[in-house]
Amino acid sequence: MSRALSSSFLSLCLVVGFTTAYWRFPSHQVVSLSSYDYETAYFTQPIDHFGFDSQIGEFKQRYLVSREYWEHGKPIFFYAGNEGDITWFCNNTGFMWDIAPEFNAMLIFAEHRYYGKSLPFGSDSYLTSANLQYLTSEQALADFAVLIEQIKLMPGAENSSVVAFGGSYGGMLAAWLRMKYPNVVVGAIAASAPIWQFGNLTPCDSFNRIASQDYRTTPGGEMCFENIRDLWSTLNDTANQEHGMTILSSIFDQCSPVSDVNVFVDWFTAIFGYMAVVNYPYPASFLEPLPAWPVSVACSYLNESRLHGEDLLRAIRSVVNLYFNYTGELKCFNASSQGTSSLGDKIWAYQACTEQILPVCSKYETSMFPPSQWDPVSEVERCEKKWNVTVRPNWMFTLFGGKDIRSHSNIVFSNGNLDPWSGGGVLTNLSDTLTAIVMENVAHHLDLRASNPADPQTVIDARNVEKEHIRMWIKG
Amino acid sequence: MSRALSSSFLSLCLVVGFTTAYWRFPSHQVVSLSSYDYETAYFTQPIDHFGFDSQIGEFKQRYLVSREYWEHGKPIFFYAGNEGDITWFCNNTGFMWDIAPEFNAMLIFAEHRYYGKSLPFGSDSYLTSANLQYLTSEQALADFAVLIEQIKLMPGAENSSVVAFGGSYGGMLAAWLRMKYPNVVVGAIAASAPIWQFGNLTPCDSFNRIASQDYRTTPGGEMCFENIRDLWSTLNDTANQEHGMTILSSIFDQCSPVSDVNVFVDWFTAIFGYMAVVNYPYPASFLEPLPAWPVSVACSYLNESRLHGEDLLRAIRSVVNLYFNYTGELKCFNASSQGTSSLGDKIWAYQACTEQILPVCSKYETSMFPPSQWDPVSEVERCEKKWNVTVRPNWMFTLFGGKDIRSHSNIVFSNGNLDPWSGGGVLTNLSDTLTAIVMENVAHHLDLRASNPADPQTVIDARNVEKEHIRMWIKG
Repeated sequence: MSRALSSSFLSLCLVVGFTTAYWRFPSHQVVSLSSYDYETAYFTQPIDHFGFDSQIGEFKQRYLVSREYWEHGKPIFFYAGNEGDITWFCNNTGFMWDIAPEFNAMLIFAEHRYYGKSLPFGSDSYLTSANLQYLTSEQALADFAVLIEQIKLMPGAENSSVVAFGGSYGGMLAAWLRMKYPNVVVGAIAASAPIWQFGNLTPCDSFNRIASQDYRTTPGGEMCFENIRDLWSTLNDTANQEHGMTILSSIFDQCSPVSDVNVFVDWFTAIFGYMAVVNYPYPASFLEPLPAWPVSVACSYLNESRLHGEDLLRAIRSVVNLYFNYTGELKCFNASSQGTSSLGDKIWAYQACTEQILPVCSKYETSMFPPSQWDPVSEVERCEKKWNVTVRPNWMFTLFGGKDIRSHSNIVFSNGNLDPWSGGGVLTNLSDTLTAIVMENVAHHLDLRASNPADPQTVIDARNVEKEHIRMWIKG
Repeated sequence: MSRALSSSFLSLCLVVGFTTAYWRFPSHQVVSLSSYDYETAYFTQPIDHFGFDSQIGEFKQRYLVSREYWEHGKPIFFYAGNEGDITWFCNNTGFMWDIAPEFNAMLIFAEHRYYGKSLPFGSDSYLTSANLQYLTSEQALADFAVLIEQIKLMPGAENSSVVAFGGSYGGMLAAWLRMKYPNVVVGAIAASAPIWQFGNLTPCDSFNRIASQDYRTTPGGEMCFENIRDLWSTLNDTANQEHGMTILSSIFDQCSPVSDVNVFVDWFTAIFGYMAVVNYPYPASFLEPLPAWPVSVACSYLNESRLHGEDLLRAIRSVVNLYFNYTGELKCFNASSQGTSSLGDKIWAYQACTEQILPVCSKYETSMFPPSQWDPVSEVERCEKKWNVTVRPNWMFTLFGGKDIRSHSNIVFSNGNLDPWSGGGVLTNLSDTLTAIVMENVAHHLDLRASNPADPQTVIDARNVEKEHIRMWIKG
């Protein structure tokens, strides 16, 4: 895998890259997630909403329901599932659970087709380009709209207003659901939704620039930043030594030897990027169990002096241990399976090669990551060859309007300024009903997580603004 | 064909039924249409906008362009082609040509996929349910949106506002284009667009009630109405006589004998319905060459006294001659090919069996047409069997919002009160930017036709209101 691909790989994994990393370690014991009480249900959907051929067939979409706090006529809060198992999003979206009682709201968490247990062709879903043909955001949005209309047939729900929620790609889906089906949802809370990460709407170095900035602004961060920026040449220098790859495999405690230095480059690129994404103010296990402010903790190994050679590599080893082994149970690591084998990741890669092509690059001046350029032409070529698809790069602009979304209404776009994805988000109000919230000192959709004593005031304020908007949108 | 199907057939042919009748008579000389000066162009579209499988392929969409009046930066008026050859709509939408000079507008008339020369699979386009799979309004809207975005890349067009126009099903498409792609068109003139003709939104007898009313309100119209309402039993009585079908075939100058009386029932049902649709105040050849106020002319054969038996049939024979042979060149008629063989009709029937299921029925009290009921269950059964499709009757409501369209903006819905389709239209303002115009004494989208000295004041006023809205929508 080349450098450019490494960067683009990072760009392609909004969040699920984390789960990938998590799934890679089956022996890993999870720090207990807060688990909520819900029913699991399945709804029969057409595999193709946009055609009628009876040979295409149907599939079962999974969704989770809680009516614990619901009263007839009161609203329905609907989570637009993103690229992963819906139970995971459900358990990590405590905001909906926290506010359900005061709104007497029903909660629905709907799984995105082709993920989790919502597989249009069962275990054959990823087998051919023909089977993958129905994996698009439009189909997923249609699933959501049709499911909501069905749920509204439930006694007492006929007059219930439906509010969409989502984070990351799910936040984009929530916003797009309101934009395309305003008759179905009265508004959307789109948390950390980089809807402008496409094409030239946002500079391609935005993700890596913001992530780097997160490291740079920790205590002693300038040193941390410089040390990490040195890592890539140190890796290459070591790899070029005699037995260099054996040395690296040993330093980084690999379960089996790694023969390509780029595997390490990709691995560290992902780890540093992901850690910036989930740089939360309290210990959390959104993806990996991590301490509070993991970026600062990572920098604590790297901020005392300029490190070189094996000293630098051993400090990085501590970061790896922090990221993957905070609970201290792993005996070895496995960098070589990074982002190649696991399910959710593979399938997001298809979306990232068709519709969700999110440019990413890295500039030496502003980034600690390996410098890389964004080459849309070669990326499209790679994608078309890999997936037997014909890419239409302008389609997402035509479909969702690019920056021209002012004629829509009732969407709150929230972003944390620490979140590397925030660069592609909506950061200023577009109209009275398209509202932007920027949260200082906040990472990726922290506002969607359950309330926590360590939450900064900005996220508490943001949740209050979100609730205000929901109150304006709903009837009764 | 049963009575119910006859009625539903009528309901299924918004306008193209006329062209069917026209195509049925290849020897028929057309009264010269006003013909405008345009270029013909083709644009390569993906056959499937909602998937990326490279095996699906592309096709050429035809569109017509006039830049005669256009200045750089000035608007683009875009006709959303409906169910037929686009040149025909182009030549019958004189309003766009009339106002192009004062707006310095470019004109585009885009053909709907699967009609005219825009055939996704060439001559095989209608061969299988798999080939017909991509014939939906969503795909057609995507064609329009993608084509517009392409046209806006033309030098001088980058900042041009695009206004959608359409009549009948084309009017629905124009409205939906604004609703689904507000980033692509700044507004829509939706003329005679029965977007509420679906499901229970409008009583199913609306079309036949309004059409009947058109006959009833002509001079002597009550007699005309009664005579036509007697026709159906007279036809049956005659058919039940010895050699009854021979007698009917002879009275109605059939080129070849007709053996099933229902063929005549369907034929007359269509003729009377269609004549109400194009009941224009001046001679026109929108579909068939007809005199001014054809409904009144038709009633002139039927409004002097109650007619019975052969007298009634011979009076009806005069109406047939009026409708199909106004120019006096036909030697015989051909009722038996009604709505079964010709291209546009067959293909509209597919749309009418999947998405565009428009309920129609006829009640004795309010209608001169054969009484019929609307049975959605048997209609869906018939459709599924005929086309190998799975019908999802609620989908159009989810997709386009049913009556819940208030969150959209910048659409003018115009309807003539004589138009049988007006019952399914938007007849009152829904908001400041969703405007309804009801034109007294006006039939199907007369406002879209070229200005004519015989135009009633209401249509002149309507066009002025439409122009005012366009001025508000466009930039510069």
